[in-house]
Amino acid sequence: MAPRRSDPEALVAALRTGDRSALARALSLVERGGEGARAVGRLAFGHGGRAYTVGLTGAPGAGKSTLTSAVIGELRGRGEEVAVLAIDPSSPFTGGAILGDRVRMQDHALDDGVFIRSMATRGHLGGLALAAPQAVRVLDAAGAPWVLLETVGVGQVEVEVAGAADTTVVVVNPGWGDAVQAAKAGLLEIADVFVINKADRPGAAETRRDLEGMLDLTMSMHDAGVEGSTSWRPPIVETVASRGQGGDVLWESVLGHKAHLERTGQLAERRARRVEDELRTIIVRSLEQRALGIAGGDRFGALHAAVVDRRTDPYQAADELLEAASGASS
Amino acid sequence: MAPRRSDPEALVAALRTGDRSALARALSLVERGGEGARAVGRLAFGHGGRAYTVGLTGAPGAGKSTLTSAVIGELRGRGEEVAVLAIDPSSPFTGGAILGDRVRMQDHALDDGVFIRSMATRGHLGGLALAAPQAVRVLDAAGAPWVLLETVGVGQVEVEVAGAADTTVVVVNPGWGDAVQAAKAGLLEIADVFVINKADRPGAAETRRDLEGMLDLTMSMHDAGVEGSTSWRPPIVETVASRGQGGDVLWESVLGHKAHLERTGQLAERRARRVEDELRTIIVRSLEQRALGIAGGDRFGALHAAVVDRRTDPYQAADELLEAASGASS
Repeated sequence: MAPRRSDPEALVAALRTGDRSALARALSLVERGGEGARAVGRLAFGHGGRAYTVGLTGAPGAGKSTLTSAVIGELRGRGEEVAVLAIDPSSPFTGGAILGDRVRMQDHALDDGVFIRSMATRGHLGGLALAAPQAVRVLDAAGAPWVLLETVGVGQVEVEVAGAADTTVVVVNPGWGDAVQAAKAGLLEIADVFVINKADRPGAAETRRDLEGMLDLTMSMHDAGVEGSTSWRPPIVETVASRGQGGDVLWESVLGHKAHLERTGQLAERRARRVEDELRTIIVRSLEQRALGIAGGDRFGALHAAVVDRRTDPYQAADELLEAASGASS
Repeated sequence: MAPRRSDPEALVAALRTGDRSALARALSLVERGGEGARAVGRLAFGHGGRAYTVGLTGAPGAGKSTLTSAVIGELRGRGEEVAVLAIDPSSPFTGGAILGDRVRMQDHALDDGVFIRSMATRGHLGGLALAAPQAVRVLDAAGAPWVLLETVGVGQVEVEVAGAADTTVVVVNPGWGDAVQAAKAGLLEIADVFVINKADRPGAAETRRDLEGMLDLTMSMHDAGVEGSTSWRPPIVETVASRGQGGDVLWESVLGHKAHLERTGQLAERRARRVEDELRTIIVRSLEQRALGIAGGDRFGALHAAVVDRRTDPYQAADELLEAASGASS
C-alpha cells in the first residue's frame, strides 16, 4: 500500500527503499515547513550521514544549470548516482514557462541514477536557511551519495546556503567585472573551487587574472592566521558547459578538495560548524514563531496604529508587545 | 562644540540643522545596529514623515548606479534636493577598489543638494531589513525630501528591502531572458515602474514585449481581485543612463505613480503596511538576541556535540535548549 500523503514515518521508510514518489512528497513537506518538515527531517537525520554535498552558485545567467547538467553527465559516466537540489527565488511564475533554463537538466530526468528537484522557498526570512539542510538530509537518507545544491549566488541568505556544502563551487563568466561582482556578493569567501564558465568567450584570461589577484590577497591573509599549512587555495577551472567541456576537470577539482578536507580533518570540522549554525537557526526560527503569535494578538493592532499616527515609534511599540508576551507566557 | 561621536541625541539634533558629518555618523550607528541604531532611529522617527522614498533595484550590472546618477541629475535640474542610500552586499573588499561602479555617482559628491551613502550590511539575518528603514528615517529627519534606495535585486531580503519604498523602480536590460530573470527574482511583484536601461542595445523591443506579456498576466489577476480600478499598471521606460538619456521620462513616471498613490489613498496604506512589517521584524530580531544568549550558554556546547555524534537531532536539541532558556528566564 502506498504511504499516506503526509505521514512522515511511512514516507521516510518508503524513500529509503528507493521510492521516488515518497522522496518527492517528503521534499514537498520540507518545502512547506512547519511540523511536517520537522518530522521528516528528524527521521531522515537518523538514516543519513553518508552523502557528500557540493554547492554550486553564481550570478543569474552564469550557466549554473548547464554546468550542473555537465557534472551530472560526468558523474553518470563514472557510474555514480547523484541528487540535485535547485533552489530558485520563487515567483507566481515558477511553476510554468520561465523554467526554460532547467530544460537541459531534463536530459537526465528519465535516468534512474539521477534525482532532480527544484525548490522554491521565498516569503519568510530564514525559510531557505532551514529548508535546504533538511532537504539535503532527506536526499541523504534516500541513499544519494552525491548531492548537488544549486543556488543563485546573490543575496545574504542565498550565499549562506551555498556556502553550507562540503565543497562549494562558484561560477563566474569571462568579461570585465564578473570576478569583482562575485567578490562583492560575498562569493570569494565561500569558494572552494572557481569555474570560469563560457570560457570560449573573450575575457576569460582577464577574469582568471582578477580571481588570482583576489586569491593572492585572501590567501596571504589566511597564511598570517591560524589555519597555517592546512589552507586550501581554490583552483580555477575553465568550462564550456553548453558544449559539455570541462565537467571532468571540474569534478577532479571537487574530488581534490574533498581529499584535502578528509586529510586535514577539516571535513568533520566543517560539518560540526554547519550543525552549530543550523542549531542557532532553528532556535531563532522557534522564537520567530513566538513573535508571530505576538504579531497576531490584540495589542498588536493598537500599537501598530499608534506608530502609524506617530504617537509612538516602532521600537517602543515592539518593547511593549514583547513585555506583554513574556508576562502572558510565564 | 561638535557632538560626541556616539551621542544619539546630539547627533540627531545636529543632523537636523544640516550638519553632514553628524548625518554620516548617525548613519554609521544605524549600520552597526544595536542600541545606538535604536536610539538614533527613535529620535529620528519623531522628526520625520516628509520624505518620499524611491527604491531602485535590478540584477548586478543592470546599470543601477548610473541610473541613480541620472535621476540625481534630473532632480537637481528641477532644483530638488536628494539623498541616496546605496546598499551593497558587503565583502572584505567593499571599502576599497571594487567600488569602481560608484565612481559616476561621485559626479554629485561635491553638490550640497545631494547626499550619497553606501551601506554594507551582511552577516546577520534580518540586519538589512532593519537597518534600511532606520537609515531612511535618519535621512528623512535630516530633511531630505527625496530618498533613493538602491539595492541589488536578487536575494529574498534584498528584494524585500527594495519593495519597501513608496515607489519601486525595477531596472532590466535588453536581451533575451532579462525580463524573465527579473520575474524569477521576484521583481515583477514589487515593480511600480520598469526601466529598460542600455536601451540602445539590441533586444530592447523583445524585453519590452516580455515585460508587457508578464504584466498582462498579473494585471488580469489583479483586476479579478479586490483592488479593482485602483490598480496601477507599471509603465516601461527606456533609458541610456550612461549617456544621460531617459532620466527625465523615468522621473515623470515616478511622479505619476506618486500622484496615483496619493489620489487613491494607497500611499498611507502602503506606509502603514510597511510599519507593520517593520514592527514584526523588530520583534523577531529581539527574540533572535535572546536566541544568541541561548547559543552562548553552557548547555549549547553539550547539545551541539550530541548532534554531531548523531545521539540527537538538531530539532530535538533546539527544543531542549529553548526549554532550558524559558525555565531560566521565568
